[in-house]
Amino acid sequence: MGETVKVCEVGPRDGLQMAASIMPTEVKIEWMASLVAAGLREIEVGSFVPPKLIPQMADTAEVVRASRAMGGFTVAALVPNLKGAQRAYESGADVVIVPVSVSEGHSRANTNKGSLEQVAEVRAIVEWVRAQERPMKVDAGCATAFGCSIEGRIPVDRVVRVAAALAEAGVDGLVLADTVGYGNPAQIRDTIRAVGGEIGAVLDRLHLHDTMGLGLANALAGLEEGIRAFDSALAGLGGCPFAPGASGNIVTEDLVFMLESMGFATGIDLDGLFRAREVLQRGLPDAALLGNVVKAGIPRTDPRAA
Amino acid sequence: MGETVKVCEVGPRDGLQMAASIMPTEVKIEWMASLVAAGLREIEVGSFVPPKLIPQMADTAEVVRASRAMGGFTVAALVPNLKGAQRAYESGADVVIVPVSVSEGHSRANTNKGSLEQVAEVRAIVEWVRAQERPMKVDAGCATAFGCSIEGRIPVDRVVRVAAALAEAGVDGLVLADTVGYGNPAQIRDTIRAVGGEIGAVLDRLHLHDTMGLGLANALAGLEEGIRAFDSALAGLGGCPFAPGASGNIVTEDLVFMLESMGFATGIDLDGLFRAREVLQRGLPDAALLGNVVKAGIPRTDPRAA
Repeated sequence: MGETVKVCEVGPRDGLQMAASIMPTEVKIEWMASLVAAGLREIEVGSFVPPKLIPQMADTAEVVRASRAMGGFTVAALVPNLKGAQRAYESGADVVIVPVSVSEGHSRANTNKGSLEQVAEVRAIVEWVRAQERPMKVDAGCATAFGCSIEGRIPVDRVVRVAAALAEAGVDGLVLADTVGYGNPAQIRDTIRAVGGEIGAVLDRLHLHDTMGLGLANALAGLEEGIRAFDSALAGLGGCPFAPGASGNIVTEDLVFMLESMGFATGIDLDGLFRAREVLQRGLPDAALLGNVVKAGIPRTDPRAA
Repeated sequence: MGETVKVCEVGPRDGLQMAASIMPTEVKIEWMASLVAAGLREIEVGSFVPPKLIPQMADTAEVVRASRAMGGFTVAALVPNLKGAQRAYESGADVVIVPVSVSEGHSRANTNKGSLEQVAEVRAIVEWVRAQERPMKVDAGCATAFGCSIEGRIPVDRVVRVAAALAEAGVDGLVLADTVGYGNPAQIRDTIRAVGGEIGAVLDRLHLHDTMGLGLANALAGLEEGIRAFDSALAGLGGCPFAPGASGNIVTEDLVFMLESMGFATGIDLDGLFRAREVLQRGLPDAALLGNVVKAGIPRTDPRAA
């Protein structure tokens, strides 16, 4: 088998965030069980944000606990602040991801804080977690790293500055996120080189959206720059809050097909993902499920690398 | 402005081939005029194949003549044999593209000839064209170069052998075509390197389909290997005869957005392409028009390279 690439499913968090109807907790659990059965080994199961802001995430503590009970995968949760991290810890999360918007405008609009104030919150989380009994990984996500609906194109040196501050704050890993999906492959390359040159292997993941249809091309650029972990969502669930009807996260099924075709090992079974789509569709009957591979089907003469 | 990349519109030929209803000649002309207004400078306007096989293409001679009268772009037509090339010449085409299936099984199924017998047909076309008064470019298309629904994965050395025979036959240019859309970026790279190593700059174009969602990632791999011309279809028109519901050619709008975002110059205006979509939709009211950029819209804070 080829080199391993990790695919982290973010549908239950980033995908559901935009869903019109609330998915019941037991359906979320059934969906995640189907993802684990397909071979996914890391799932971002929810976020600890105020239920008033995102009612879909009101049951995240329960989902984290049920995920731990299910076992077999790394349970990740998004947290905007120390309070969220403490709730994630108490529920039993293995990893928390703390978003920091690289765009000052986006950061203030979302958190009432500037980027560097939010880095201070990350530092407080790292320090609090280190003082606890049980280990929990703290990752930071550089949101809007490749463009922002408020500020447009983000200068690479701005991303480097925020990433360096986050590495200095002691995060275990850093995700560069194309939150609105405006990035292009040349920019992905330049940014990874610049950030990697500053913080090295702490930069360990890409989070991409397919808003403009460039999601997998951007993933390819990341792969070629040495990134070996990607966020994606089953059926490309989600969308872009700034562009109704636009695509959401990159599609797990298509990403897995690309990686396996190129000879990388993901440990994920496409037929298992197709079954997980059925569970998801039952849970969200009105959602438009995206994805090319499922429509085309796996050819009898499988073109994936042997 | 950055380096130029040529985008060749193939919707009127490859896209329409699968359409359920016949598009009237005058609508085809109106559609092509809207493409030229958007900045396209090469269009594959039809194919000289037996009308019994593809009724949609019965008016190709008329479309070629009207295209010449319109002017402002290179008029290309697909021809399967010498007779087709002669008809294209008489109608006034600037370029003929002769497909040669690299897959022996696909070649026999489509033309009743093996790959190398079809190369002999190409040689006859080149010789006939050279003996004529008016110059006409003869390109060859290596069909199923990245996979075939009959033979599965195609060995790279098979592609090299057919490409070398075509170069030796005297073609002006060679297009590597992912006819069914099973290719992946690693394979695209390997094949371009191997074929380019054998025939050099005669290899000058990629023709990609988005069946599995990897179309733009494959285009990126081609770009990085030095390819500077790509076929695509407005709204991703077309489809895959072997996978009902699957995507067709890569989407012109999304390809142009990717190239321009990366700093390449295409000379094509996205708003003009959006207007051309409206013409196309009027001409084919039942067709599902694909494309991400048109759904997301060009952000106020344009993320394309300045």
